[in-house]
Amino acid sequence: MTLPRPVAWGHALVGCLTKEVSVERIGDELVERVAGSIEPLDQAAWTEAVAQNAALTKPAGALGRLEELGLALAAMAGVCPPPVPKRATVVVAAGDHGVHARGVTPWPQRVTAQMVANVGAGGAAVNVLARQVGAEVIVLDVGVASAVSLSDNVLSRRVRAGTADLSSEPAMSRTQALMALRVGVETARELIAAGTDCLLTGDMGIANTTASAALIAAFTGAPPTEVTGRGTGVDDDTWRRKIEVIETALTLHRPRSDDPIGVLACLGGLEHAALAGLILATAGTRTPVILDGVIASAAALVAQRIQPLAIDYCIAGHLSAEAGHSHALARLGLAPLLDLGLRLGEGTGAVLALPLVRSAAALLGEMATFESAGVSRRG
Amino acid sequence: MTLPRPVAWGHALVGCLTKEVSVERIGDELVERVAGSIEPLDQAAWTEAVAQNAALTKPAGALGRLEELGLALAAMAGVCPPPVPKRATVVVAAGDHGVHARGVTPWPQRVTAQMVANVGAGGAAVNVLARQVGAEVIVLDVGVASAVSLSDNVLSRRVRAGTADLSSEPAMSRTQALMALRVGVETARELIAAGTDCLLTGDMGIANTTASAALIAAFTGAPPTEVTGRGTGVDDDTWRRKIEVIETALTLHRPRSDDPIGVLACLGGLEHAALAGLILATAGTRTPVILDGVIASAAALVAQRIQPLAIDYCIAGHLSAEAGHSHALARLGLAPLLDLGLRLGEGTGAVLALPLVRSAAALLGEMATFESAGVSRRG
Repeated sequence: MTLPRPVAWGHALVGCLTKEVSVERIGDELVERVAGSIEPLDQAAWTEAVAQNAALTKPAGALGRLEELGLALAAMAGVCPPPVPKRATVVVAAGDHGVHARGVTPWPQRVTAQMVANVGAGGAAVNVLARQVGAEVIVLDVGVASAVSLSDNVLSRRVRAGTADLSSEPAMSRTQALMALRVGVETARELIAAGTDCLLTGDMGIANTTASAALIAAFTGAPPTEVTGRGTGVDDDTWRRKIEVIETALTLHRPRSDDPIGVLACLGGLEHAALAGLILATAGTRTPVILDGVIASAAALVAQRIQPLAIDYCIAGHLSAEAGHSHALARLGLAPLLDLGLRLGEGTGAVLALPLVRSAAALLGEMATFESAGVSRRG
Repeated sequence: MTLPRPVAWGHALVGCLTKEVSVERIGDELVERVAGSIEPLDQAAWTEAVAQNAALTKPAGALGRLEELGLALAAMAGVCPPPVPKRATVVVAAGDHGVHARGVTPWPQRVTAQMVANVGAGGAAVNVLARQVGAEVIVLDVGVASAVSLSDNVLSRRVRAGTADLSSEPAMSRTQALMALRVGVETARELIAAGTDCLLTGDMGIANTTASAALIAAFTGAPPTEVTGRGTGVDDDTWRRKIEVIETALTLHRPRSDDPIGVLACLGGLEHAALAGLILATAGTRTPVILDGVIASAAALVAQRIQPLAIDYCIAGHLSAEAGHSHALARLGLAPLLDLGLRLGEGTGAVLALPLVRSAAALLGEMATFESAGVSRRG
């Protein structure tokens, strides 16, 4: 467990100020406040968890990654044993992407709104998995291009109807990026205030792996050929086009990773912005965030540049089959719990990891000790 | 999904007949009956599941290993969608090992009985994990060396009080191996008759990784240096001693992998025998078995040599950190679902995989189709 030092993140936001001062100010101050609210992991709880773990009726280290995870959960919560998440919520941030017009995916753009309706009706993969593990699912429309049917679990928080084409202009303005980030912050805070004790990232948006690959290339420095994947299934020609589009965008915008809001605005999606805000705000309440795949990790790279401490509250649910994910996780310093060849998004890989997170916390709190169970120690 | 052809397994049992005809006959006939009851996977249900999977609202293949698992569950059950396991039971087969006297582990032998009591009281890791995922845990004492406190979930089925030292004599007689195997068969059948719809293998027995490594070496042909691990934590000297003991046993008994009961009797534990019986009987009812780690896979190698079709009903819950496990899984033709560095046993790795198994079945049954949800297909 590393305990990274807080860094001066504020200067990164200086470039955010534009003519729309009032909205910008709100966003700027909000980001500053939420980033400033994140505290380091709790060393005392961590130390206590190490001692408790050593007393449990098992050989040292025999529970492998679950032991590391249990210690991390104690350090996040600031208490040992850590609470077992009871009310977990998947937030599926949905948005469309102007780059869709460049032919980076075989799926029509209207599928984003159709799949939002499917999630709202409980028929998508993420719903099925969430029912299995006892998690709630909500959809945040932060930027779908077409009409969306709203319901109790499909919330309208639309900042704009899809981004612009990142290969020819900024995907959105800084103001819009900050507004979408704020949606994520407020959603996380409302959910946690209402009892959610674990947040899971989800996403929905045709062409969002293109924007994710662009963000990952910008933040990790990896070449587009290495971070651009097949998304939901593209052929060789489309894959090469996707790479060209990303190379064009990087040349056009010359992203500076020390300006995360600038990078987000030029290359990202509205759902990346919302998820970055969600990660920051959740970390600020010492609540764990389980990241899904490549879209979530691209958003987490934004959050990391705003406040590195935020990543200490993140758990990588799985390793996606999508190319850029391992690059992003390496930069985040996170090791995935599952590796099942998933490349669906929606939050599916995060939901599948939830039982592991709960189990890691429960082991520290519920297992007998050598002393309490009267079990002899090794010779 | 491979659909292996049934093989003539009966000849492998010819060598079982000894002077103790009555008991032997019972065992022999039982093994013959249980092996003969296992049917091939259902091709029609498999084909139906492939079509259903292709209709679900997701890109083809985007759920990776969960899709393969869903198809396999349909082929096991003979119906699509496959039932979602509701009543899963972990059977922790417990036994002691005469080879303990050779100094192959730093743990005292009395820990087996102490840990049986711990599992009975609900304080072991497997209990905590089972509560998290909603599974039952029972302990079968098939061969603990010392007194065990019985309870509703700790059952006495003791065949003998621990095995003999496999490096100087057969660990048990063929009769005893068959009797312990029968315990596993009867336990599985009773549980399934009472409503259990998924069996998980568990184990408890100080020194059981030594017997497992010997079985894996015998069935895979891999050298003892490659299949002998650190168990619950042994130092270099103990590890070398463990390898020497296994080499001595292999030289002494000259196991023939076409005589699985003979190999089991010479090298195995009573818990391996019980688990082999449990796997065969469960497969015979078209019910899935989730295997835990190295002890379970050693038992599955016995079952495989008796009836290869049995392995089609097995799911490898995880990859253990113990050395021999990957060799055993390769021979079984199974790919593990999880890889969390576990090396505890008890069934912990199987229990952690249960939500993935349930999820795979639920996806086939509960996800909307492109047609039902009105989602457009890719261009």
